[in-house]
Amino acid sequence: MNLSVIGGGSWGSTLAQVLTDNGHSVLVYDINPVYVDKINHQKHPFFDEPLKDIKATNNLKEALEFSDLILLSVPTKAMRDVLKEINSLINSKKSFVNVSKGIEPETLKRVSEIVKEEINPENLENYAVLTGPSHAEEVILRKLTLLTSASDNPEFAKQIQCIFSNDTYLRVYTSSDLIGCEVGGAVKNAIAVVSGILSGHGLGENARAALITRGILEIIRVVKVMGGKTETAFGLTGIGDLIVTASSENSRNFTAGKKIGSGINASKAVEESVQTVEGIRTIQAMHLLSIEKNIELPIIDIAYDVIFNNLSVEQAVAHLLTRDLKEEKLD
Amino acid sequence: MNLSVIGGGSWGSTLAQVLTDNGHSVLVYDINPVYVDKINHQKHPFFDEPLKDIKATNNLKEALEFSDLILLSVPTKAMRDVLKEINSLINSKKSFVNVSKGIEPETLKRVSEIVKEEINPENLENYAVLTGPSHAEEVILRKLTLLTSASDNPEFAKQIQCIFSNDTYLRVYTSSDLIGCEVGGAVKNAIAVVSGILSGHGLGENARAALITRGILEIIRVVKVMGGKTETAFGLTGIGDLIVTASSENSRNFTAGKKIGSGINASKAVEESVQTVEGIRTIQAMHLLSIEKNIELPIIDIAYDVIFNNLSVEQAVAHLLTRDLKEEKLD
Repeated sequence: MNLSVIGGGSWGSTLAQVLTDNGHSVLVYDINPVYVDKINHQKHPFFDEPLKDIKATNNLKEALEFSDLILLSVPTKAMRDVLKEINSLINSKKSFVNVSKGIEPETLKRVSEIVKEEINPENLENYAVLTGPSHAEEVILRKLTLLTSASDNPEFAKQIQCIFSNDTYLRVYTSSDLIGCEVGGAVKNAIAVVSGILSGHGLGENARAALITRGILEIIRVVKVMGGKTETAFGLTGIGDLIVTASSENSRNFTAGKKIGSGINASKAVEESVQTVEGIRTIQAMHLLSIEKNIELPIIDIAYDVIFNNLSVEQAVAHLLTRDLKEEKLD
Repeated sequence: MNLSVIGGGSWGSTLAQVLTDNGHSVLVYDINPVYVDKINHQKHPFFDEPLKDIKATNNLKEALEFSDLILLSVPTKAMRDVLKEINSLINSKKSFVNVSKGIEPETLKRVSEIVKEEINPENLENYAVLTGPSHAEEVILRKLTLLTSASDNPEFAKQIQCIFSNDTYLRVYTSSDLIGCEVGGAVKNAIAVVSGILSGHGLGENARAALITRGILEIIRVVKVMGGKTETAFGLTGIGDLIVTASSENSRNFTAGKKIGSGINASKAVEESVQTVEGIRTIQAMHLLSIEKNIELPIIDIAYDVIFNNLSVEQAVAHLLTRDLKEEKLD
């Protein structure tokens, strides 16, 4: 079948390759003519691996006319503007699969909510999120990866599962917990920044494993308050994605945190990041949420103080170690 | 206070150093005179970091007379024999803290059960397990580490928490779920071997994160069937310890798996491992358990076939990918 991929960055181009591997036809739209040119010459915009049978265009209207199934792979900060533009260009029903992970900091809205706000209801057929532990760097090399497709419509979740799964390197599960999958994918970026901060400060794998274990509790609290299910946070889109993002130099959230932990200030670390550091924006959003909804997010809150209020990492760790000794609890 | 440490290997010697850092007096027993001599010269038997104020002896009776609080740090395969010997040498009440992670393959018994069987009830005061994500290599360098102390007696769990915690690098939580903590610590070694197998076979971080996410479900099933709590498996002693063990060259379980995954056969990989590979013994034990108790442990079972029945890793991965596409579920 035909699919339109909106956003030809590292993940969008990689998923376009998955789709052609699986026998589908893909047209990639990107605003950046350099990416478009590279893709049309079967060069991945970020990796050395050559692409195969993928076409790209700089014309959004052309991309949207190519298919009724639209893959959204744009940074969440650009999402609302891109959706406004898409809405102005379509006049028939479209289904959307979002693969970007983030929450709009100002509104605390998930991408599915932004889609509902920006796309004319008459033209919005289905919506799903495709998420899970997936470095693009490995998927483009066709290394074994497991994802989850979540939608309010179980049939659409299954359709996405079938389109993306293959029997050589990609296996997709389904989930009916759209909210849990969207929130897990966003908040893990915040914890990944913290993991980078610890690493940049010279702490090791013991501290990281403890952070991930305690960090998942904060993801659960956010998932719950936003209406998702606890068990989703323990699956591929929560703990799985957190593990892969919080332990890897491949993650721009982790590397941005690492610069902060090693002493470079946050704004410089953000500036230095070639691509968007979703996790730092998510820390801002979650800090706001913890105040608004009165939920305990101690890791997020102390990371906020390190990044935005000049708290030193030494002070943050000392604060953690000198709290009262406690029983270990999930809640 | 005084503490006796039984077993001066990498973790026993490291915890002895934690105890002296915290102002306690320690006498370490080891059967190996080379270790005893090194420790008495304040050399760690495995690491370059010098020890401080630790004494060691080759005389078990002397070590047992030094304190009524006994730290057990011997491989689980030697545990029963060591406990028999300890029982023959003591004639007053002792409390035990076990820091070894494993399950007796032949009997499927936890260390707390073995202690109850081998130590005269009149001489058995308290029992706790101290466990969690902790590479000795980092603790000896005083890098931030979080552990959990679990006991049927909450007061004893708290006493152990206080003895080991400090405000510079080690923080101990308590738990009342002794079974959950013991089982989590044992089964994670089995999943860590599988993680090594995937890595040795050339798979990446996406596959590892998926393995850990799906592996925790098998830990939960074993914890439940043995009488522990699901939530313990999601804490430091389950998911936390699994993350640190399944991702690190520091783990002998991971490195043994890596050799198997890269083509060296299992018995050779076991032979080559200087220290004991608990995870391979645990895979045997869990495979037996899955049959006896009729619980689904697909990862453990397929790893058993790779290690003991010459199934290739290619065949194992293909088996995983060609199963029916499913909904993601915790159970």
